[in-house]
Amino acid sequence: MNYAKINKEDIAFLESLCGKERVFTGSEINEDFSHDELSGIHKYPEALVEVSGAEEVSAIMKYAASRNIPVTPRGQGTGLVGGSVAIHGGIMLNMSKMNRILELDEENLTLTVEPGVLLMEISKFVEEHDLFYPPDPGEKSATIGGNINTNAGGMRAVKYGVTRDYVRGLEVVMANGDIMEFGGKIVKNSSGYSIKDLIIGSEGTLGIVTKAVLRLLPLPQKTISLLIPYPDLARAIETVPLIIKSKSVPTAIEFMEREVILAAEKFLGKAFPDSSAAAYLLLTFDGNSKEEVENAYEKAAHICLDNGAPDVFISNTQERNEAIWSARGAFLEAIKASTTEMDECDVVVPRNLVADFIKNTKALQDEFGVRIMNFGHAGDGNLHIYALKDQLDEKTWKEKLDAVFNRMYAGAHTLGGQVSGEHGIGYAKKPFLQKSLGDPAMELLGRIKQAFDPQNILNPGKVCR
Amino acid sequence: MNYAKINKEDIAFLESLCGKERVFTGSEINEDFSHDELSGIHKYPEALVEVSGAEEVSAIMKYAASRNIPVTPRGQGTGLVGGSVAIHGGIMLNMSKMNRILELDEENLTLTVEPGVLLMEISKFVEEHDLFYPPDPGEKSATIGGNINTNAGGMRAVKYGVTRDYVRGLEVVMANGDIMEFGGKIVKNSSGYSIKDLIIGSEGTLGIVTKAVLRLLPLPQKTISLLIPYPDLARAIETVPLIIKSKSVPTAIEFMEREVILAAEKFLGKAFPDSSAAAYLLLTFDGNSKEEVENAYEKAAHICLDNGAPDVFISNTQERNEAIWSARGAFLEAIKASTTEMDECDVVVPRNLVADFIKNTKALQDEFGVRIMNFGHAGDGNLHIYALKDQLDEKTWKEKLDAVFNRMYAGAHTLGGQVSGEHGIGYAKKPFLQKSLGDPAMELLGRIKQAFDPQNILNPGKVCR
Repeated sequence: MNYAKINKEDIAFLESLCGKERVFTGSEINEDFSHDELSGIHKYPEALVEVSGAEEVSAIMKYAASRNIPVTPRGQGTGLVGGSVAIHGGIMLNMSKMNRILELDEENLTLTVEPGVLLMEISKFVEEHDLFYPPDPGEKSATIGGNINTNAGGMRAVKYGVTRDYVRGLEVVMANGDIMEFGGKIVKNSSGYSIKDLIIGSEGTLGIVTKAVLRLLPLPQKTISLLIPYPDLARAIETVPLIIKSKSVPTAIEFMEREVILAAEKFLGKAFPDSSAAAYLLLTFDGNSKEEVENAYEKAAHICLDNGAPDVFISNTQERNEAIWSARGAFLEAIKASTTEMDECDVVVPRNLVADFIKNTKALQDEFGVRIMNFGHAGDGNLHIYALKDQLDEKTWKEKLDAVFNRMYAGAHTLGGQVSGEHGIGYAKKPFLQKSLGDPAMELLGRIKQAFDPQNILNPGKVCR
Repeated sequence: MNYAKINKEDIAFLESLCGKERVFTGSEINEDFSHDELSGIHKYPEALVEVSGAEEVSAIMKYAASRNIPVTPRGQGTGLVGGSVAIHGGIMLNMSKMNRILELDEENLTLTVEPGVLLMEISKFVEEHDLFYPPDPGEKSATIGGNINTNAGGMRAVKYGVTRDYVRGLEVVMANGDIMEFGGKIVKNSSGYSIKDLIIGSEGTLGIVTKAVLRLLPLPQKTISLLIPYPDLARAIETVPLIIKSKSVPTAIEFMEREVILAAEKFLGKAFPDSSAAAYLLLTFDGNSKEEVENAYEKAAHICLDNGAPDVFISNTQERNEAIWSARGAFLEAIKASTTEMDECDVVVPRNLVADFIKNTKALQDEFGVRIMNFGHAGDGNLHIYALKDQLDEKTWKEKLDAVFNRMYAGAHTLGGQVSGEHGIGYAKKPFLQKSLGDPAMELLGRIKQAFDPQNILNPGKVCR
C-alpha cells in the first residue's frame, strides 16, 4: 500500500484546523496510543489529533483522502484485538474528547451522545432519570463509540440483546469526508439497506461514528443475583440449557471457576462472598416488583438444585450485588496481572454447546502445556478464554499460542460458532476470521469495504484483507 | 440493461432441474404472479419456477448469471410496493413451496424455517410449545421470507422490536449461486461486517434467503388490551408520548379513527366492541402474571383518563381480544374495498411527532380533495396512510397522488422520519427514497448492490437506482 508519509505541510494543515495544542507528533505522542489493552501489536501513529466535532473529522478525512493518508479512529483503547492501533501509521483521531451527552429525549426514550462518552457515564446518567441502557460489557471505561464499533455485548445479552439492538441512529463521517446520517429517533426503518447495521461492528473501517442515538428502556425496579456453587464446571454449564428451556428469563448467566475468583480476590484485595466451590453460575433477574422477580428466579433456582448445585446464595442487597459484580468486572485485569503476557479467544457458540467447547479447551491445556483460564457469558454462549504465557520463552509461547488458538477456533466453527462474540476482529483475529468464513465471504467483506472506502484509508488492515 | 430473453434452451434447463410440473411459461402463469397486493405495477415473468430447496435456487442463479437473466424471488405476493414484481421479466422464483419448519431448538430458543412458511403458521407452531415469535405484522398470510426481506415490524414493535431483532442466522443464495450462511444459532456476533443485517430489509436485491434461524421468547402468560375512546384523533395521539414518558411499557399502541372502524365492520360483517367515539387508542400489555399486567396498564389507563379519554374499556377475554384485533387486522383490506384504487404511504417518524404528521395529512386531504384514511402504530411512529382514488379520473388521480405523496414524504423527512417503516421501497417508493436520502447515500446503496450482484440480475430495479 502506497500511503503518503506525513510531512510538515500535513502537520501545518492539522494545526490550522485544530490548533497546535490538539495535534501531537513524534515523542509528544503518549506511549498509550501505540497499542491497545491486549493485542500485543505496537505502532505509533505519525500524528495524533484530538478532534472536537464531526466537521473537524470531515475536514481531516477530506484532506487525508486527497493525500492518501491512513486514518485510525480511537476511543479509550480498551480493545483486545488491535482494532485501534495505527498499524500503517498516518493520522490517529483521538475521539475521546468528543464526550458530550447531547440530549435525553424522554418522549422517544432516546439518548443522543458523542462517541467518546464512557459506558459508565451513560449508565449513571440514565439511571438518574430512572432509565436504563441495557448493554453491559465488563469494561465500563470503554467509550460508546468503541462499543458500537465492536457491537459489544456484555452480561445482560441473555435478556436484552447487544449494542446493535440499542442503536437507533448514527452520524458517520465517511472516507471521503461526507457527513451522513443513518436511522434516527425512529423505532422502525425499512428504507433501503441498513447502513447503520453495517457500520455497527465495522471497527472503524467503513466510517467514523461522530454521534449516536441510543434506545433506552425504563429502569427495572428490582434486581436480584443468585450465586450458585457447583462441584465442577461441567455440571454448572450443563445446567444453563435447562434454565433456558424452562422458559425462565434471566438477565444474565455468567460462569466462573474458583481459580479465576481467587485471582480476582488477590487483584482487588477483597473477598468474594464464597470461594469454596470449584465452579459457580451467577444469575441475575430483574423486573418491576419483588413478586415478579421472585417468580422468575424460583424456577431457575430449583433447576440448579436438582442438577448438582448443593446450594443457592441469594444476593438481594446492593452491597452484596456490588461485591459479586465488581469481582466479575475485574476478571480480565486479574488474569492479566497473574501472568507475563496473554491472549484472548472471544468465541461465541450456540449456548447448549458451551459445555462441549469448554471440555475441548481443558483438553488443550493438558495437551499443549499452556495455562488456560476462562470465564464468560454462559447464557449467551460467548466465552472469554485466556492463554497465559507465564514463564514460556517467546518462541515456544508464540508456537503454542498459535496451535492452541487454531484448535480452539476450529472447534468453535465445528459447533456452529463464530470467531468473535463481542470483541471484534481488529488486526489480531483476521487469520481466524479468514479460516472461519472462507474465501467467498472474505471477498464479499472486501468488496463492501471497497464500496465505502475505495482508497482503503479508513483504519486499513483491520477486519478484511 | 441488456438482459437475455428466455429461450427454449433456458426452459429446457429449468425443466431438467425442477421437472416440467414446476416450471410455468406464458399463459400457464397465473395472473397473481404479475403484481402484488397494492402497488399498481404489472408485469409477467417470462418463466415462473416453483423451487424446492437452496441447491435448486443455487443452480438457477448460476445459470441465470451465465446467461444474464434477471431473477425475482417471491413469497405470497402480499407486498405493497412492487418489490416482488418481475419488472424486467426473466425468471420468477416462487419460494412459497419451501415452507417447512425445520427445527425447534428449545435449548437455544430458536426456530429454523424455510422462507415460505407463513407468519400465522409460525405463531401457531411456537405457541403450541409455549413459545413466542414477537414480530406481528397485520398480514398474517405473508411468508417469513418476505418479512425478513422487508424487515417487517408490526404491532408489537413498541415492546419487542422488529423482524431484524429476531433473526439469528440466514442461509442465502448469492447472485453467483454461492450458498452462504451468515450468523447462526448464536446470540452475539462481532465477526466481520454484519451481512445478515444487510440482507434483512434488502428486498431480494442482495441475495435469496433460503433458510432462517429465528429467535424465540417464552410466551407471555397474560395479555390484556385496552380500547380507549377519544373525542378526536389529535387528543388520542398526543397521549402516546405521555405514556412512553411514564415508563409504562405497552406491547402495542395502535390508533384508529371511527371511519376506519366502520369500514372494517362493513368489510367483516361484524361489530367492533365500540364505535361511538371519533378516535381510539388500542393498547396491549403482556406479562407473566395478572398482577404484573395490571401494574403495567393501570398507570397508562390513568394517563389516558387524565388526557381527554372519557372511558377505558378493558378487554381481558380471548373472545373480546379477538374481536378487536381481527378488526385491526382487516383495516387494510377494508379500506381497499371501500374505493376503486389506492396507494399507501408507510412513513415512520419519531413517536412524539406523530400528531404533527397526522395534522399535516388532514390538511392535505382538504387542500387536494383526495380522500385520505389512516391508521397505524402510534407507539412506534409508523403510520399507514392511504390515498383513495374513489371516482377521480386516472389523470387527475395520478397528479393528485403524486402531489400529496411528495408533500407527505417531505413532511416526514422534515420531522426526522424515513420513507418506510416496514413495507420497504420496492419499485414504487424509489423516487421518495431518492429524495429522502439524497445522492451520496443512494450512490452508496448502489455500490453495495454492486458488491453483491455485479451483473444486477437479482431483483433488478428495486430499492436502488
